Amino acid sequence: MVDDIVYFEDLSIGDGFDFGPVTLTREDSVAFAAEFDPQPFHLSDEAAAQTHFGTISASGWHTTALFMKMFVAEMQRNPGRQAASLGALGVDELRWLKPVRPGDTLRGTSEVIDKKASAKRPEMGIVRSKVTIFNQQDEPVMTMIPIAMWRTRPGADGQ
Amino acid sequence: MVDDIVYFEDLSIGDGFDFGPVTLTREDSVAFAAEFDPQPFHLSDEAAAQTHFGTISASGWHTTALFMKMFVAEMQRNPGRQAASLGALGVDELRWLKPVRPGDTLRGTSEVIDKKASAKRPEMGIVRSKVTIFNQQDEPVMTMIPIAMWRTRPGADGQ
Repeated sequence: MVDDIVYFEDLSIGDGFDFGPVTLTREDSVAFAAEFDPQPFHLSDEAAAQTHFGTISASGWHTTALFMKMFVAEMQRNPGRQAASLGALGVDELRWLKPVRPGDTLRGTSEVIDKKASAKRPEMGIVRSKVTIFNQQDEPVMTMIPIAMWRTRPGADGQ
Repeated sequence: MVDDIVYFEDLSIGDGFDFGPVTLTREDSVAFAAEFDPQPFHLSDEAAAQTHFGTISASGWHTTALFMKMFVAEMQRNPGRQAASLGALGVDELRWLKPVRPGDTLRGTSEVIDKKASAKRPEMGIVRSKVTIFNQQDEPVMTMIPIAMWRTRPGADGQ
């Protein structure tokens, strides 16, 4: 049992936390691209040199997957948050701001920007957060707004 | 050399194409989740039974990666499109509508919904498309609006 569950009612706009870091190896970057995004500029420096990327970069979808890896690891260090999380409806305003290169070390921040009770499903609320992923030079490489479903406090809906 | 490059000027609102299919194996689904999204409901039916998912489902980020896999394969079958594609700035309105389950066969459609010349960078235009991913029951499981950079016809900017 988790003693200190962070329910929807416990979240406030501006609440934030950090996650990561994770370092992307060249081997992992090329393997992910070969499987899911085999565009030449994700596969070799030689091909990337012929594009505006210049040198090899990771698939943007690898960056989103690494965001999730860091985010879930942080949730699992905080069982009170994990116990209240019901997954995500989607993501708004995903932006790849700069290429992520093999060897880069990524970290992220998340901050609650909006919360809304669900009229249809009183057992959950909707929480929007602004996520920013940074590289080792503290440059933002990706931003997005995940839309999460979050458990409400039992009894809060009158049950 | 590619003879029939599909430049920004050649794209019209409503232009669409189909891509896929790809079938998600249980092994691949669990391996992706273990690496990037190890939430219990993505790892086993037993854990998923204790959540609103009911049975095991794929990570939503696996579905986006499979979209890209199908999309790039289709692009590579059409070198005239691939030659003009300059990557994506981001994605708006990504929505996971239904769980994707191991064994599901996914396919997708893409339709141009907006195009805009870039004042700052005359060598490219911005193209927004509506993407829908369907399962084998023709149910939409994911929608999103990728924002792509697309090469303009050489000389179109007066160079």
